Amino acid sequence: MQFLSDNAARVHPAVWEAMKAADAPDSPYDGDALSQRLDAVFSDLFGRECAVLWASTGTAANCLALATMVQPHGGVICHRESHIESDECGAPGFYLHGAKLLLADGTGARLTPDSIGAVLAGITRGIHQVQAHAISITQVSEYGLTYAPQELTAIGELAREHGLGLHMDGARFANAVAYLGCSPAQAAGPVDALSFGFTKNGGMDAEAIVFFDGEQADLARWRRKRAGHLHSKGRFLAAQILALLEGGLWLQLARAANDAAAHIASGAGERLLHAPQSNELFMRMNADERAALRAQGFAFYDWDDASVRLVTSWDTRGEDAQALATAIAAL
Amino acid sequence: MQFLSDNAARVHPAVWEAMKAADAPDSPYDGDALSQRLDAVFSDLFGRECAVLWASTGTAANCLALATMVQPHGGVICHRESHIESDECGAPGFYLHGAKLLLADGTGARLTPDSIGAVLAGITRGIHQVQAHAISITQVSEYGLTYAPQELTAIGELAREHGLGLHMDGARFANAVAYLGCSPAQAAGPVDALSFGFTKNGGMDAEAIVFFDGEQADLARWRRKRAGHLHSKGRFLAAQILALLEGGLWLQLARAANDAAAHIASGAGERLLHAPQSNELFMRMNADERAALRAQGFAFYDWDDASVRLVTSWDTRGEDAQALATAIAAL
Amino acid sequence: MQFLSDNAARVHPAVWEAMKAADAPDSPYDGDALSQRLDAVFSDLFGRECAVLWASTGTAANCLALATMVQPHGGVICHRESHIESDECGAPGFYLHGAKLLLADGTGARLTPDSIGAVLAGITRGIHQVQAHAISITQVSEYGLTYAPQELTAIGELAREHGLGLHMDGARFANAVAYLGCSPAQAAGPVDALSFGFTKNGGMDAEAIVFFDGEQADLARWRRKRAGHLHSKGRFLAAQILALLEGGLWLQLARAANDAAAHIASGAGERLLHAPQSNELFMRMNADERAALRAQGFAFYDWDDASVRLVTSWDTRGEDAQALATAIAAL
Amino acid sequence: MQFLSDNAARVHPAVWEAMKAADAPDSPYDGDALSQRLDAVFSDLFGRECAVLWASTGTAANCLALATMVQPHGGVICHRESHIESDECGAPGFYLHGAKLLLADGTGARLTPDSIGAVLAGITRGIHQVQAHAISITQVSEYGLTYAPQELTAIGELAREHGLGLHMDGARFANAVAYLGCSPAQAAGPVDALSFGFTKNGGMDAEAIVFFDGEQADLARWRRKRAGHLHSKGRFLAAQILALLEGGLWLQLARAANDAAAHIASGAGERLLHAPQSNELFMRMNADERAALRAQGFAFYDWDDASVRLVTSWDTRGEDAQALATAIAAL
Repeated sequence: MQFLSDNAARVHPAVWEAMKAADAPDSPYDGDALSQRLDAVFSDLFGRECAVLWASTGTAANCLALATMVQPHGGVICHRESHIESDECGAPGFYLHGAKLLLADGTGARLTPDSIGAVLAGITRGIHQVQAHAISITQVSEYGLTYAPQELTAIGELAREHGLGLHMDGARFANAVAYLGCSPAQAAGPVDALSFGFTKNGGMDAEAIVFFDGEQADLARWRRKRAGHLHSKGRFLAAQILALLEGGLWLQLARAANDAAAHIASGAGERLLHAPQSNELFMRMNADERAALRAQGFAFYDWDDASVRLVTSWDTRGEDAQALATAIAAL
Repeated sequence: MQFLSDNAARVHPAVWEAMKAADAPDSPYDGDALSQRLDAVFSDLFGRECAVLWASTGTAANCLALATMVQPHGGVICHRESHIESDECGAPGFYLHGAKLLLADGTGARLTPDSIGAVLAGITRGIHQVQAHAISITQVSEYGLTYAPQELTAIGELAREHGLGLHMDGARFANAVAYLGCSPAQAAGPVDALSFGFTKNGGMDAEAIVFFDGEQADLARWRRKRAGHLHSKGRFLAAQILALLEGGLWLQLARAANDAAAHIASGAGERLLHAPQSNELFMRMNADERAALRAQGFAFYDWDDASVRLVTSWDTRGEDAQALATAIAAL
Repeated sequence: MQFLSDNAARVHPAVWEAMKAADAPDSPYDGDALSQRLDAVFSDLFGRECAVLWASTGTAANCLALATMVQPHGGVICHRESHIESDECGAPGFYLHGAKLLLADGTGARLTPDSIGAVLAGITRGIHQVQAHAISITQVSEYGLTYAPQELTAIGELAREHGLGLHMDGARFANAVAYLGCSPAQAAGPVDALSFGFTKNGGMDAEAIVFFDGEQADLARWRRKRAGHLHSKGRFLAAQILALLEGGLWLQLARAANDAAAHIASGAGERLLHAPQSNELFMRMNADERAALRAQGFAFYDWDDASVRLVTSWDTRGEDAQALATAIAAL
Repeated sequence: MQFLSDNAARVHPAVWEAMKAADAPDSPYDGDALSQRLDAVFSDLFGRECAVLWASTGTAANCLALATMVQPHGGVICHRESHIESDECGAPGFYLHGAKLLLADGTGARLTPDSIGAVLAGITRGIHQVQAHAISITQVSEYGLTYAPQELTAIGELAREHGLGLHMDGARFANAVAYLGCSPAQAAGPVDALSFGFTKNGGMDAEAIVFFDGEQADLARWRRKRAGHLHSKGRFLAAQILALLEGGLWLQLARAANDAAAHIASGAGERLLHAPQSNELFMRMNADERAALRAQGFAFYDWDDASVRLVTSWDTRGEDAQALATAIAAL
């Protein structure tokens, strides 16, 4: 009964099927028919024109998006617990040629206009100090929390005011849309580029970089090739994305994962660090309690000395979620 | 009847099977059981200890290997028609932080101790000029030609003498082994790192970076993550490689591709730029002749005004190869 | 009466003289007789073998030194108020190819084994997180405070234990030696490389990068040229350094600057944020008080809303220091 | 009697005077009164608005200029014997974050629309190949040859047509203006940025980067700081430039150097590789002849096995030039 990570989940049968169907000679790289359909399919989904590139990892997606907004001498405002800061082994430094991450605070790893403003206010030494070129937010955050549409609007206004690009790390964007119950466009808000994750949500190794500005997409194409991320058989990445997107499978899978998390959370009461808004749960739990759960066959990561992280996924079995909920209640 | 590229070939059924078999929860990234087996399997194959990392593209494999040998202020001696120089959109400049490609000559896009020596002899301005840190050779070359074991030995000696790293771009290494009829170890010669390609030879998106020096492999691990190439479900890449490697399928597929090429070449006579040594053929052909072939349903790329490139793959059908051979003979 | 910065100070007459004396044809770059003497002169000063490169700015000196210790995928532990973090416009990101500054705390912008240890303890996510490759400390710190020899020893031990390089930003190293009353070797402690500043202490545009490891120096030579910092008439930089070093002028000038600061501080009592240990003073002062001082002709920078920074230099006139001391006492 | 390099020449007395005059407290970095005058003085000189930054080396000037025109994934077309390709230890790779130098041919190290066009015509592999973003030409070239105004116009048109930036390495721009007898504006032609050298022409360590586009200059300011090239006492660099510029001293000195070269060339006849157009001479000379000259006290560099390079400077003594001319005629 694994609650370690949605990375460990299986590939959805529909994705397998689509990949198999793509196994016929076609143009290499992204010249194939499937890759060529992405722009249209995402433009439909978001209700406005998008240009979309696939990439095989979220780190690549985030960095390729940011590289279109940030000069090597600039910086990106992000949360100090964000993935790009803490879990990508300095990839932004590599892709942005030494640009700096400018760390902001915020409860639940979420930025606010105030916390962004505090970073901007601290940049006072002119030419001697790295200036912000962009903001990167995470939907859902490292703590599984969402930004509501009006919060995104406020951050977008701040970005525009200061001439900053706005990027969204949406490794779990599907879970945000499922929780918020709004349209994808509302859940993305006024961002310039969105890393839209599929790998954690039924895919194998496919993420979409959705650009709402075609020029940025064109720039990213060169950078993707230069970073060794232009797969020669790109049709297999496009196939994964299309299989999940078409018919709304992505949303259905995200709802399943969120529901499993909500079920587990239902009896956790005061243990919860945050009321769950996606498929990630953070709970206070002491060493004995952890050991007790693990002895019953539940696998999960410690978050820190006082708490654990539990992640559900599209293929979390109902009985496993139920068992975990019961076990937690019994602690 | 496509002879455009082995990139366009299908994924081998055994690879599909292995990927499906890998579709169960396991440790993310490269902590899974399959990824953990790579070192042993390649060490067996090469008869000496290797440390192996998977990557999803040849460009990434080449650049991650070179980054362990070349300082940002150094250079890589390579052929002026090599893939890293001409077809990777400057990826080495990105991964090596501005290091320079130092271009050497050589018939059939193959380097020789003399052509490498000529580059070294031209570096005379001390601190003012970029110094060579490594040599990169391609087995088989851009023209489908191999390096014989004794040629590799000679280049290896030169590298050692000058304190240079030695890298082999083996996107079509399997075709070289098949042609040379020697062991993989002999076909790799004294290289420090080998990009061993599987994508063009029955795989989907998997290349192995084989390090014969464990410290370089450890360095490459950080760089791979930092470049966004550490797939979260790495087991699917390892599965592809293992499926092709185990039981010698890789060699069998490469032989099939080589045989198809040899068959097509058999009647081409004076048209051939080079006697074929792998699955790539280069033939003199005028515009009318090209048109005639294309009218019969053969797809292939022009190489330049005077010649064309024809590439076979593991799944080239015998009747297609026969038809092409006949059509060429009839021109 | 300027107390803005020691950057604004004049060039010492002995430096002018030495530069004029250097104005005769000699080998270009660093092949001239003066540049060639630097290793010996610094080896004498530090009582052990050094290899020394000149550079024209402290930013270049710091970054060229760090680039010999830190891989692009690594990080440098430094104080969050250090110059390399706050005042070099991201130069370390440029020179270290995207390596990260890992920010530590500490009173008076000084690191301690504990504060360094806290950063190291926070690096827990293996391949996903940037690892420390070096520590950079500043002697004197951004608040003008020194590290005592035994403090340096403790930090050096920690560095060795963790396999980290150790760099010292010594833009005001002379002021530290003058305050500590110890030898230069003791004030440098077990660092691998020292940026030894002369520009703020009677020079025009010369800093020495002192390497206690010859191989690092050899590496830095390539990087210096590559960064456009190998002056073609390098003899003029060497001349500045030698003029200040020989006869102990550097120490004499630093003492004068320190003494002026001590004099100003003598009547400042509770205003002082820190008991002065060099030529920089930080005092609590409200807006009215600042205005009063400025009205009397004193120029200085605000540090923050509650305090100001006052910097003396080798050429601060005794009467100006006296006048400022009196004016502050009279507030 | 040295004819090694104009790098070895002395600093002009007027430059010393101006530097001494600048030795009074002023704003640090480039906020001083002298640095602030540069834009106006160069705007006058070129008859159109310029924004000007000083830098201490030609390598820095070239690279900072190019960095405003070339993206990391792009390339710079330059001559294969140009300084940025051969003598800057890969500095463009560093400053341009891995962008590539795309090497063109041309007699006397001069580009032509045809040789540039040949490079452009060779870029055919779309996303797989580095695209040109800029052209860099050298006035005077590595062989001391000039571009006439109409040649610059033709190259400028080609650049505009292809959307490429145009940079001029003018380390010896003064010598070009002196030879061409035209205005500085005509000698610069339609370039976007000019590295205008003063170090080889009476200065100590000052080059001007002249931007004809203010936005590029603003970008270069950040990059200069980030590269450690923002001197804290920048007034001394501005002073050098102003001393040489005002009153036309720069042109007078360049004429003196050119005249000395012309005098030496006058009797060299068939030995000359090129009719001299500046202060550099290239002559065919065998080993015995070189030895004979050196035995008479003439110092100069071998260029290759068959020829030598002789460089005059503003302070080449008439009698030395005469002696050399006589000695060459007597060979």
